Amino acid sequence: MNKISVAIIVGSDSDLAVIASCAKLLDEFDVAYSVDIASAHRTPEHLRKIISDSSAAGAEVFIAAAGMAAALPGVVASETTLPVIGVPLESNPFMGTDAMLSMVQMPPGIPVATVAVGKAGAVNAALLAVQILAVKYPSLRSKLESYRSKMAETIKEKGKQLRELGISHYTTRQKP
Amino acid sequence: MNKISVAIIVGSDSDLAVIASCAKLLDEFDVAYSVDIASAHRTPEHLRKIISDSSAAGAEVFIAAAGMAAALPGVVASETTLPVIGVPLESNPFMGTDAMLSMVQMPPGIPVATVAVGKAGAVNAALLAVQILAVKYPSLRSKLESYRSKMAETIKEKGKQLRELGISHYTTRQKP
Amino acid sequence: MNKISVAIIVGSDSDLAVIASCAKLLDEFDVAYSVDIASAHRTPEHLRKIISDSSAAGAEVFIAAAGMAAALPGVVASETTLPVIGVPLESNPFMGTDAMLSMVQMPPGIPVATVAVGKAGAVNAALLAVQILAVKYPSLRSKLESYRSKMAETIKEKGKQLRELGISHYTTRQKP
Amino acid sequence: MNKISVAIIVGSDSDLAVIASCAKLLDEFDVAYSVDIASAHRTPEHLRKIISDSSAAGAEVFIAAAGMAAALPGVVASETTLPVIGVPLESNPFMGTDAMLSMVQMPPGIPVATVAVGKAGAVNAALLAVQILAVKYPSLRSKLESYRSKMAETIKEKGKQLRELGISHYTTRQKP
Amino acid sequence: MNKISVAIIVGSDSDLAVIASCAKLLDEFDVAYSVDIASAHRTPEHLRKIISDSSAAGAEVFIAAAGMAAALPGVVASETTLPVIGVPLESNPFMGTDAMLSMVQMPPGIPVATVAVGKAGAVNAALLAVQILAVKYPSLRSKLESYRSKMAETIKEKGKQLRELGISHYTTRQKP
Amino acid sequence: MNKISVAIIVGSDSDLAVIASCAKLLDEFDVAYSVDIASAHRTPEHLRKIISDSSAAGAEVFIAAAGMAAALPGVVASETTLPVIGVPLESNPFMGTDAMLSMVQMPPGIPVATVAVGKAGAVNAALLAVQILAVKYPSLRSKLESYRSKMAETIKEKGKQLRELGISHYTTRQKP
Amino acid sequence: MNKISVAIIVGSDSDLAVIASCAKLLDEFDVAYSVDIASAHRTPEHLRKIISDSSAAGAEVFIAAAGMAAALPGVVASETTLPVIGVPLESNPFMGTDAMLSMVQMPPGIPVATVAVGKAGAVNAALLAVQILAVKYPSLRSKLESYRSKMAETIKEKGKQLRELGISHYTTRQKP
Amino acid sequence: MNKISVAIIVGSDSDLAVIASCAKLLDEFDVAYSVDIASAHRTPEHLRKIISDSSAAGAEVFIAAAGMAAALPGVVASETTLPVIGVPLESNPFMGTDAMLSMVQMPPGIPVATVAVGKAGAVNAALLAVQILAVKYPSLRSKLESYRSKMAETIKEKGKQLRELGISHYTTRQKP
Repeated sequence: MNKISVAIIVGSDSDLAVIASCAKLLDEFDVAYSVDIASAHRTPEHLRKIISDSSAAGAEVFIAAAGMAAALPGVVASETTLPVIGVPLESNPFMGTDAMLSMVQMPPGIPVATVAVGKAGAVNAALLAVQILAVKYPSLRSKLESYRSKMAETIKEKGKQLRELGISHYTTRQKP
Repeated sequence: MNKISVAIIVGSDSDLAVIASCAKLLDEFDVAYSVDIASAHRTPEHLRKIISDSSAAGAEVFIAAAGMAAALPGVVASETTLPVIGVPLESNPFMGTDAMLSMVQMPPGIPVATVAVGKAGAVNAALLAVQILAVKYPSLRSKLESYRSKMAETIKEKGKQLRELGISHYTTRQKP
Repeated sequence: MNKISVAIIVGSDSDLAVIASCAKLLDEFDVAYSVDIASAHRTPEHLRKIISDSSAAGAEVFIAAAGMAAALPGVVASETTLPVIGVPLESNPFMGTDAMLSMVQMPPGIPVATVAVGKAGAVNAALLAVQILAVKYPSLRSKLESYRSKMAETIKEKGKQLRELGISHYTTRQKP
Repeated sequence: MNKISVAIIVGSDSDLAVIASCAKLLDEFDVAYSVDIASAHRTPEHLRKIISDSSAAGAEVFIAAAGMAAALPGVVASETTLPVIGVPLESNPFMGTDAMLSMVQMPPGIPVATVAVGKAGAVNAALLAVQILAVKYPSLRSKLESYRSKMAETIKEKGKQLRELGISHYTTRQKP
Repeated sequence: MNKISVAIIVGSDSDLAVIASCAKLLDEFDVAYSVDIASAHRTPEHLRKIISDSSAAGAEVFIAAAGMAAALPGVVASETTLPVIGVPLESNPFMGTDAMLSMVQMPPGIPVATVAVGKAGAVNAALLAVQILAVKYPSLRSKLESYRSKMAETIKEKGKQLRELGISHYTTRQKP
Repeated sequence: MNKISVAIIVGSDSDLAVIASCAKLLDEFDVAYSVDIASAHRTPEHLRKIISDSSAAGAEVFIAAAGMAAALPGVVASETTLPVIGVPLESNPFMGTDAMLSMVQMPPGIPVATVAVGKAGAVNAALLAVQILAVKYPSLRSKLESYRSKMAETIKEKGKQLRELGISHYTTRQKP
Repeated sequence: MNKISVAIIVGSDSDLAVIASCAKLLDEFDVAYSVDIASAHRTPEHLRKIISDSSAAGAEVFIAAAGMAAALPGVVASETTLPVIGVPLESNPFMGTDAMLSMVQMPPGIPVATVAVGKAGAVNAALLAVQILAVKYPSLRSKLESYRSKMAETIKEKGKQLRELGISHYTTRQKP
Repeated sequence: MNKISVAIIVGSDSDLAVIASCAKLLDEFDVAYSVDIASAHRTPEHLRKIISDSSAAGAEVFIAAAGMAAALPGVVASETTLPVIGVPLESNPFMGTDAMLSMVQMPPGIPVATVAVGKAGAVNAALLAVQILAVKYPSLRSKLESYRSKMAETIKEKGKQLRELGISHYTTRQKP
């Protein structure tokens, strides 16, 4: 794999708190990534430089996260033919509906792979990037499968505890 | 006034039918304009050329019309400090809600002056452009006032006919 | 430039906290402005007086901010041919969707230049007003360009720090 | 009762087809009414004249119907203390959601009695106006009750036929 | 006027806090009213008793406030030909959209006069009820006009202070 | 099973065309049903009579279909403790969103089992009614299973044809 | 009745706090139930095991609660012909609209009985399950009727107190 | 490349007309694909067989298209760790909003790469699949670049014609 396989770009440094869980998950999969701040609207030229620098550095997938009229992933997608994953972020007052529609509704010709709004989307963007890389790098496939097994085991374990404790005790214990 | 005062850009030639009423209205006001097709997503470089060519040609206001994830006016606004008017266009299945939010919800720093979705917006984009130019060119002010008077007279005239005919006859006459 | 170039009108004094950032930005650009409170529904006559007084005082652009069934910018636009910028404000329970539609969806003939809901819109209304004035007053053009450069520099600077610190340290530092 | 008890105002003559069922229903109740065309945005002064003329002519209730950013009923309500009924009209692309929110969400102090979007609203505006007048004119009360009885009888009669024919024959018969 | 002119019905005692401002405003106008709790869904028979008792007690207008699938005002309207005002209340998660549509979208034949969601609606329901009663009782007309004058004076007074203090001082003073 | 196991009630005879597929499906399962027209708002007393008559006739499940502010299923549910299935119907301009929220968002205490808007909901209401009756009548269980097998076989058969014809031929054949 | 009559499945243990009121209500009706955690997306195989185990244990109704793209009740419904009740749960940022549409809009053939979003839905799911079981077990019918009587009595009792205290004292007493 | 690189699954054969443009585009890129019909709700077992058969046949990317409560892509994603692209399809009355939210809002752990609703999404799903495959197969990269160049050339060509003809002639020529 390349030195940098996933290039993450956020529209503002206030988006980093949400995207941190995306970066952390890529770390778990030992997938190298870069994180940059660039705004489609406020730093268009700088954004183009980051896109071409990232490609030159070997990036194979882009993840772009932004809120409001979130043109960022679309603009990234217009400058590269690499797969681009869009993470719509929540902001007042439309709570991400604006960002989601700005990403999902790309015109025919320039797709953006849109995932859920906010934190769920940040996690899923990382997993989708790994799934895409796993098409090429078979070693990632087994990591994905073990990630999924662990996730299932955790849920089953909670189910077992619920059966033992009963719903009333289980939820009481959750609170503090 | 300049040879070209208003630069109109549409995202696709299928948008021209709606924007034609915008061009026609600028003709009525004797405001020179250019019309170009350029997609923020499909021809980003060509779009930047058009923006800079239009500025060089003397454009003082931009009107950008697009549908779906309508990044066009935002991208224009990111490449110029001239006022940019955005016209959201209807498309299946969200009928312009996606385009409207992609224009209205611009992040702080890069405004897009958004008008109504579709034909009403195409007309109002022309009038807003003329209002902006009228700040500089006083001759346009009186044209705007006479446009508005005529509009009011037409409505009053219809009201007079309605009073004479009664609602039942008036609406019967409308049908054929 | 005139003694008062931009006339700001809010529908209620509770809207002033949001619109303050609009006023502050006009101060940065040395653009003179007035701020008035007038409700389209509760003080219609007073509103008309403020519109005509503002025009007489030399206002060249109006900014009108209101929430709920936000008729204010539309009513201002119906009484003047100067450009009118509308800032939809958030209020319970529709969080500005009602105000946004009441501004964007103006009928053909009377445009309102609508910007984003709430604080982002307050900032962008000021910038749009300056962009409109810059059509006439060339000195404002360079101020706009330097404003935009500074904005871009701030983002690039943050990007540099992010590269140095890494996302984990950068976001930790943000919290306190 | 007065010569004119209900003053109906529409924002455009294209709205008359929908509002015709409102006028027709007032005819059935022998309630005198006027119908005028006036736009809150395009003929604000003319609208104020119509409101004051209607009041002088004895109007006791206003019905105002409009589409898009439907400021009409709100502006009527701001110029009179008589009850104002608002009928939101459908228009592309928001199909009346814009008009409905522009009427329902009036700020505290200036109510508009909003009814359903489109034809259902036109009928209900007439009935609501009659209900309001019936508070003062007892003769209208019995007319309202007989209107309601007839409506119920029609539904019961259809139910009887349905029982006799069965759903399959009943719906077949409906088609041609 | 009757001993009880306005019958207020809420769907749950948790709605009383919002409707209290409605009751208080009726007090200001010296309009007598009753307040009852009755649910269209949970106490349908009791609701019918309250409607007929209220009518017998002389009620001339109903105000019904409810949240969620807010059938209350519609059911009241189905049992009386007196005017019925509906106040949609906010509740999780749709914040009153469900209640608003359940009131505005009444089928032709049975109108509900719908006002704004929540507190603004509670105030406007009271004013609309007084406007309806003022059709019959002229003494209420002048009270409505003086209410409106006072409201306008308060806004103008705030405008004067804003002019004197400037927006920066005015908003600072608002905070504590 | 009873002479009438399912009582279907529609708010208007114009709803019968949609609900016909519900009746037809109950016929397929040999489940006896009645169909009545009764409006929660226009014939409240008649509706109560139909509910009690249906219960007396042995109905064990109600299906209620209505559009707009669709109070019908909620009112049925308020008058019986039998399970009530609600089918929201499409109507202009909200296309069933109003009806759906009026059914799903029932207050705690009085549930309505809401299914899809329009034709899909009419079919699913019949199936849900049969599923409920099958809890008591085991013979219906096997009919449900064979219905589901047939449905699956049809889909698999189409899949086989698609494999044989290829997508291009398959879709060409669909058109005429 | 069976040892386990109602099988409750939640998509995540964070959903248990909301569903606890559903379980508590089933306790009040002496209806035996199981509670399991299984995700349609994260533990599909485990979910199928729980569905078949629950059926084997005698479950006659399923209740499935989930948030976001809430496939859970639909997947349960695809694996059984028992009635399935869906409870859409709130989650950021769409507050349950996504979950509600994922449940209500099931395709023809596989119904999910959808109830209100969140806590109201959790309560109503329990009541709907009891109503369904009461079709078979007559002893539950009288329990449902006494539950409903108590609910009505509580509301009437509050109404009585309101009449005695007046709205002002009643709401004051509510606050602390 | 494998015999079958992309496995396309649609929920119903009525979806094939829309997805045909997806298949056609994959043909243009010489990417082998399979097309199957399988419903997450109506043929869950058959769907699992298709997923495992497709994987065995060498599929490296899945495309799943469905309408309404569109569980299909999520269920595919729950059964494989290959990348899954979801195409939300329009259906009455929510026109794809239901399907879009059912795909975008996947819970953390199981991503679906969602593209635009309807035909635009069908085209973009093909392109996104090719972009994903191009990470592994470099020959596809240059095909993507030449596809994009052609797309840009077409737009530029239209722009040239528009410049030559003028908007009035251009749009006239479009009509027949």
